[in-house]
Amino acid sequence: MIQFKAPLQDINFLINDVFDFQTHYKDIPGGEEASPEMVDAIIGEAARFSEEVLSPLYQVGDKEGCKFEDGKVTTPPGFKEAYQQYMEGGWQGMTSPVEYGGQGLPQSLGLIKSELIGTANWVWGMYPGLSQGAMNTIYLHGTEEQKQTYLVPLTEGRWTGTMCLTEPQCGTDLGQVKTKAEPNGDGSYSITGTKIFISSGEHDFTDNIVHIVLARLPGAPEGTRGISLFIVPKLKVEADGSATEANGVTCGSIEHKMGIHGSSTCVMNFDGATGYLIGPENKGLHCMFTFMNTARLGTSIQGIGAAELSYQGALPYAKERRSMRALTGKKSPDKVADALIVHPDVRRMLLTQKAIAEGGRAMLYYAAMLSDKMLAAHMEGDMKAYDAWDDKLGFLTPILKAGMTELGYEAANHGVQVFGGHGYIQEWGMEQIIRDTQIAKLYEGTTGVQALDLLGRKILLGRMKSFDAFREVVNEFIKTHKNTAEMKPMIRTLKRAMLGWRINTFRIALKAKKNRDMVGSASVDYLMYSAYIVMAYFWAKMADAAHTSIKKGENVDFCTAKIQTAEFYYDRILPRTRGHASMMMKDPETLMQMEEDHFAFL
Amino acid sequence: MIQFKAPLQDINFLINDVFDFQTHYKDIPGGEEASPEMVDAIIGEAARFSEEVLSPLYQVGDKEGCKFEDGKVTTPPGFKEAYQQYMEGGWQGMTSPVEYGGQGLPQSLGLIKSELIGTANWVWGMYPGLSQGAMNTIYLHGTEEQKQTYLVPLTEGRWTGTMCLTEPQCGTDLGQVKTKAEPNGDGSYSITGTKIFISSGEHDFTDNIVHIVLARLPGAPEGTRGISLFIVPKLKVEADGSATEANGVTCGSIEHKMGIHGSSTCVMNFDGATGYLIGPENKGLHCMFTFMNTARLGTSIQGIGAAELSYQGALPYAKERRSMRALTGKKSPDKVADALIVHPDVRRMLLTQKAIAEGGRAMLYYAAMLSDKMLAAHMEGDMKAYDAWDDKLGFLTPILKAGMTELGYEAANHGVQVFGGHGYIQEWGMEQIIRDTQIAKLYEGTTGVQALDLLGRKILLGRMKSFDAFREVVNEFIKTHKNTAEMKPMIRTLKRAMLGWRINTFRIALKAKKNRDMVGSASVDYLMYSAYIVMAYFWAKMADAAHTSIKKGENVDFCTAKIQTAEFYYDRILPRTRGHASMMMKDPETLMQMEEDHFAFL
Repeated sequence: MIQFKAPLQDINFLINDVFDFQTHYKDIPGGEEASPEMVDAIIGEAARFSEEVLSPLYQVGDKEGCKFEDGKVTTPPGFKEAYQQYMEGGWQGMTSPVEYGGQGLPQSLGLIKSELIGTANWVWGMYPGLSQGAMNTIYLHGTEEQKQTYLVPLTEGRWTGTMCLTEPQCGTDLGQVKTKAEPNGDGSYSITGTKIFISSGEHDFTDNIVHIVLARLPGAPEGTRGISLFIVPKLKVEADGSATEANGVTCGSIEHKMGIHGSSTCVMNFDGATGYLIGPENKGLHCMFTFMNTARLGTSIQGIGAAELSYQGALPYAKERRSMRALTGKKSPDKVADALIVHPDVRRMLLTQKAIAEGGRAMLYYAAMLSDKMLAAHMEGDMKAYDAWDDKLGFLTPILKAGMTELGYEAANHGVQVFGGHGYIQEWGMEQIIRDTQIAKLYEGTTGVQALDLLGRKILLGRMKSFDAFREVVNEFIKTHKNTAEMKPMIRTLKRAMLGWRINTFRIALKAKKNRDMVGSASVDYLMYSAYIVMAYFWAKMADAAHTSIKKGENVDFCTAKIQTAEFYYDRILPRTRGHASMMMKDPETLMQMEEDHFAFL
Repeated sequence: MIQFKAPLQDINFLINDVFDFQTHYKDIPGGEEASPEMVDAIIGEAARFSEEVLSPLYQVGDKEGCKFEDGKVTTPPGFKEAYQQYMEGGWQGMTSPVEYGGQGLPQSLGLIKSELIGTANWVWGMYPGLSQGAMNTIYLHGTEEQKQTYLVPLTEGRWTGTMCLTEPQCGTDLGQVKTKAEPNGDGSYSITGTKIFISSGEHDFTDNIVHIVLARLPGAPEGTRGISLFIVPKLKVEADGSATEANGVTCGSIEHKMGIHGSSTCVMNFDGATGYLIGPENKGLHCMFTFMNTARLGTSIQGIGAAELSYQGALPYAKERRSMRALTGKKSPDKVADALIVHPDVRRMLLTQKAIAEGGRAMLYYAAMLSDKMLAAHMEGDMKAYDAWDDKLGFLTPILKAGMTELGYEAANHGVQVFGGHGYIQEWGMEQIIRDTQIAKLYEGTTGVQALDLLGRKILLGRMKSFDAFREVVNEFIKTHKNTAEMKPMIRTLKRAMLGWRINTFRIALKAKKNRDMVGSASVDYLMYSAYIVMAYFWAKMADAAHTSIKKGENVDFCTAKIQTAEFYYDRILPRTRGHASMMMKDPETLMQMEEDHFAFL
């Protein structure tokens, strides 16, 4: 079993030395509450909860899984009790508006909380995570009455929420949604249809569950323009807020999955359930996708957490397990063999995990700051500023979501590889991380879908505006650091990478004008290529902050390791861009020329 | 569930058009038996058995797994009956010497049989696969009496075999083996110790199981030079060949693993079991590693098979499932959406699977021919020729073993990605391939161990002899095809890659002279880099054979697809070498500089 330890030094290094959250919080509503002491206390408490309560439940959740019987779902032993503690601690409403029962703290702090929870036990964290999605939707699009009725109990954690999008015939392509919503004549609707893959659709944490459901009104236009959004509670809510009567929503079964066994993945049957329209008619997809960027940031945490947790599992093993001798001669001549960590390739795997976890975390925290700004603009009603921040965040979102889940998955694989054959044995807990992380590349938009979003929508449709904005941030950093002796070599490489990124992006855009298939054919290589360059910027930024601390004589060992990890990243990960750059520029023809019937002759 | 179909056209294309097995068989003992009709009949029968008997058991094996109770292992429903058919069909002894009950057919035919079985149901195939390992060892190092006693029933399939190497404290580093062998005074030994991760260590297929066990004689030198090899049957064998009395070998438990649930992975306790020395005292590791190259070829099949099976699962789904519209406009305007296969990135994933499966198969069949030649030399007693063939095969072995298991794993991941969220659901059978294939990167030497074997032993210690020999083969092909109009572009790329490979290898060798850590630090990148170039040669060879057929008007659609897949490989996979080439040349310092205590500050 892996005992998770919160990487508090790494977190503090980012929020203090690299990004200076305190200055950032000065302009953020709720930021005044986030004093250094408050931030410390919250992170410390979330760390304790994650280490002591959630981490010990991680393997139990996998082994016991969710049980389904007679329409009821029983979560793994200990999950419910942990949720009770979470609810009582007021964690669910930490970043929610004060007027609906929340504490109004910045989104970025919420993401750090989610990171700690999600690293210790991603699967457990999915339950409150889904509630958060429902809460955001109701907050942004619900009427005041809907907020009082549903948002308050969700914020308090007394109820949980779900997002009901997928149906058997469609996941990505939500225009195919068939679930029907018939008006009841009293302002409510009768919802009928089947939704699948509904995480937290049914469980034993709370009595009531608030489903946010995509459905079609009678006579609605076909495709994505005819979909509306509804609130459908599991139990009907009375005027006094109590809820006991069933509302025609039942769980038909739960899925048998590769991993995340402790998360209930439900088939939900809506059989004339009473629902309430949320947001305008036929604008359901638009409403659903507000704050989608923030939701997808959440998913990127799964990749970052997987890298961190797998690293925390592999590192002690690499120090303890003895096998063979170092290539340069015995390191522990009195022992039967040297420790694994003397071997260069074992170090390569460990450092890859470390570079992914810490580089990803830096990207996430930067994005979290953008998310703070975006929400601030929203609360001030400045929709122009909101859109601008949303664009900036939107550019990084697919890179974080797809890039970090792919790399987190890779890191989990390295963790198993460090263990050798033992990594394949369930008791160690290493292989579970692979199985659990596999889903991160699939849900909330597969890697392929994210890549199309990045290249097709954010870059090409957005006419490179957000791309240019991000490049400007990096170029500013390059300009101010290019003559610093200790940063010079890294900055030189970064500058070259940034230049290549711009040129290659232009070339792809030109090619895409002639052949639309270029977008899809380049997309995934382009996304990974971009992710490595974005992460190179954050590693340079961390190296710079580390140099500054070392000059002040602060935290020298820790900061030396940061610089060494940055150097490793530039030497041993960033060059992967070369392969991707070459492949993404290729003509789509080699992908498109084969006739469908010629793919196999069986 | 995926119904495996044997890729007979692909197999025949390789053995007839690309490699001309019939000419090859002229020089191979047993080759005279392998007439075109015989080869056809054997492959056809193996295909039928794999499709009809083994493929339907693949998912059952995962779901039901092996059960352990009171020291007995029950294999999944149907496994035992399938083995009965296999035994009755005489499959186990297909390539074994006629004098011990086999049919004496070429090794290469045996590998094709193993490929068909291993693609349909790798897990089931592990049982006869382990027997083969034991059989090879007894054949090469056993006395005539040992052969009569053990090899004959193994060849007939009445008994099965295992290889007992790993112990709790060591897997790769077998010098740490502690199991003891005390002489009984009657020529036999008393074996005591614990072995772990013993595949097929206990099961319900056969009554007796022949364990090949590494153990130490009293006073044996420490480390690898003090290990001997023993035959230890589960049941003591009487003079008449019957076996009923237990021999102090028991199964203590079976492991809970990420995958290969249908394979019993046993803790084996040897408690004064009677064993018989096989081969010379203290030369056990040497004996164990004879024909290790052939065993590792076997493991590479798991990667190739995973790519093929996952492709066979993903392709029909990509043709049937409808999502979104093609970037270039609707392809099925009358349908609610276009099929997945219209999307360039889906095609990229499918073609990657296809290129890996078919490219890997070509590499395997070439290696199988080397294996034939090696065995032929051995049977003729020409040990110089044997060593020469072993060298040639030994160069390709780590590339095939590590390269194809890594790429097969990648292909299995693409298969799940094509399915989107559904790929994560067990019923489809796609995620099982990932879980089952994970072990292939770990057992029979991890990817890291294979990479050290390639670069450290085969390239540097072997002073590039086998590397040069392989390069010569490729350069000959380049020379004879560089002026063929249709092959010109591919040959140009291949030539450049071969030149780069040679130069980079020399540069690494020079660097390694100054710093031994260079070997370990470059190794895995070097292995993958080499694997992509080796595969590029085989793709060029296949493209050339396809062009020849097309000119003759034969098999035009099939051969066109082959050429298109080759083009895809050169455009979209081979360029990965760029990243690896850059990373492997880097100084080891960025890997070695971090102090062990600075890897984490938790």
